[in-house]
Amino acid sequence: MVSKATLKQVAARAGVSYQTVSKVLNKQAQVSRETEKRIHEAVRELGYRPNQIARNMRAKRSFMIGYSWAQTSPNQVNHILDEFLTSMVREAEAAGYHLLPFPFREGDGLVDAYRELIDTGRVDGFVLSSVNYDDPRITFLLERKFPFVAFGRSNPELDFPYVDVDGFDGLCQVMQYLISRGHQRIAVVAWPEDSRVGNERMRGYFESMQAAGLKICSEWIERGEGTFEFGREAASRLLRLSAPDRPTAIITLNDTQAIGVLHAARSHGLEVGRDIAVIGFDDAPMSQYLFPALTTVRQPIHEAGRKCVEILVALMKGEQPSQGHTLLPPKLIIRASA
Amino acid sequence: MVSKATLKQVAARAGVSYQTVSKVLNKQAQVSRETEKRIHEAVRELGYRPNQIARNMRAKRSFMIGYSWAQTSPNQVNHILDEFLTSMVREAEAAGYHLLPFPFREGDGLVDAYRELIDTGRVDGFVLSSVNYDDPRITFLLERKFPFVAFGRSNPELDFPYVDVDGFDGLCQVMQYLISRGHQRIAVVAWPEDSRVGNERMRGYFESMQAAGLKICSEWIERGEGTFEFGREAASRLLRLSAPDRPTAIITLNDTQAIGVLHAARSHGLEVGRDIAVIGFDDAPMSQYLFPALTTVRQPIHEAGRKCVEILVALMKGEQPSQGHTLLPPKLIIRASA
Repeated sequence: MVSKATLKQVAARAGVSYQTVSKVLNKQAQVSRETEKRIHEAVRELGYRPNQIARNMRAKRSFMIGYSWAQTSPNQVNHILDEFLTSMVREAEAAGYHLLPFPFREGDGLVDAYRELIDTGRVDGFVLSSVNYDDPRITFLLERKFPFVAFGRSNPELDFPYVDVDGFDGLCQVMQYLISRGHQRIAVVAWPEDSRVGNERMRGYFESMQAAGLKICSEWIERGEGTFEFGREAASRLLRLSAPDRPTAIITLNDTQAIGVLHAARSHGLEVGRDIAVIGFDDAPMSQYLFPALTTVRQPIHEAGRKCVEILVALMKGEQPSQGHTLLPPKLIIRASA
Repeated sequence: MVSKATLKQVAARAGVSYQTVSKVLNKQAQVSRETEKRIHEAVRELGYRPNQIARNMRAKRSFMIGYSWAQTSPNQVNHILDEFLTSMVREAEAAGYHLLPFPFREGDGLVDAYRELIDTGRVDGFVLSSVNYDDPRITFLLERKFPFVAFGRSNPELDFPYVDVDGFDGLCQVMQYLISRGHQRIAVVAWPEDSRVGNERMRGYFESMQAAGLKICSEWIERGEGTFEFGREAASRLLRLSAPDRPTAIITLNDTQAIGVLHAARSHGLEVGRDIAVIGFDDAPMSQYLFPALTTVRQPIHEAGRKCVEILVALMKGEQPSQGHTLLPPKLIIRASA
């Protein structure tokens, strides 16, 4: 082992006090740009490496961000996880933090996992995923006044920092495209009404239909799970409606449902893209390889992950973030299915 | 804030010394089962919560496992990431550890990220992903004698702990199935020869052909990227071979290539499953929803993640793991495409 430089030696070389070096390295002090530069040069020249554990002990901070997500069922794929994690991990590293992933507990244990990480001093803040209405983590963290940013919104009466993809806007883009191509009978394969994300997207559907002066047939709204099977069943029902009510376009709230719709259309002898339009949501990586390639809505996941960490870092430093409520616009990707 | 119990109070209640409590909570001491039980009862009754940072400082350990993975390109999906991470995170938590994900650096910086985490005392061990031949992380960590487990193998002359899925066995299962159904002209859409994982799978192809006494036509081996585009191009070439050489079955080393093969077969007017057999590898979640549903090979990802952490925890405790070289068998999933 090479003998290591001490903080004192760094301070001597930079011509500042031990405390100044410590504070600058812990990003807790404002010094002149020149002083900071001198300190970083001394660190580099001497090959000084702070002991992270000792540093955290002094700072009473862990420099860790807790993150937990609900695992998808084996037949599904969480196609945003890689991009979301990677963007968070990179943004965190740039700010001197690391991510601490922990198991997602269902039901009553959900909040316990968060409490334990706070009480044992393991993390300085959280990014929340899989947020929905009445999320007990949000009320718990607000009560504890512990820094967090939610990826997703919850009840409108709760005020907390969030980053979300604007699903309302996404569905408005879908509807505008379909209506501009002459569609009037547009059906939706949607999620149950207890989904905050789903309801936001549905608002885009309802408002667009209304704005275009189009009547909505109650049978056009199919609500169920976001699965292939439900997409297929729901589409089969829609395609069996009598001619004046039968939709000319079917939109879904995720791509997996859309694949089910493609299968149902094929079973009914329809050619998707010519006889019926189908539009998904997510732009899952496989969507482009389907027959026909799926028109869908792409979410700015990289930007969402980056933004969650950026806001959280500001909160953990005790700053008031300028954009505590961030809505990111998704993008319609037009392919052959509509 | 409720005032918290101290370690001293726990020791007094359990009737043991301060040091014994500390060692037991840090899993560093062997005491009688009864004493351990008494200590844990005292911890629970008094609501004692160790300060994790202080505990780590005393133990000179971080109780963190470093993990980094190469992000897939935007058009691909890392469909094993969710399952692999979740199984590691759960197994780690059960052993008193957490995962520390960090950005994967390409090229020369690859090892630096590992060195920095060691030098700053951030982690006690690593799980390596995206392992290949001549992996500089392996030689570096072996030299530093720092605990790690690789998910995947490297050069045969390097001896290190690994967990891997037995790709040789996977291809043998594929070949046995095809040969039992009468196929003799079997082509492979493979990866370049510098892929350790790919070569292991190819060994299963070559040995199975040889064992069955089947000749291999050199044009049946297509090597290129694991993409949809390469799968489609390669299959087009294979399907244009003159009748006596044209393969009756095409296997691929991943499902994305297999989807390209399905497209090419369709363009050639062939019905997959009847006119030609296609088998993928991975069992990506979308594979079951393709036309036709894809026969493919499923990897035991959950078990692989769990095993990586189990072996690493033993190494970090200074124990000799009983199964330092673990090969897990994959499973052929038979669907309509073959």
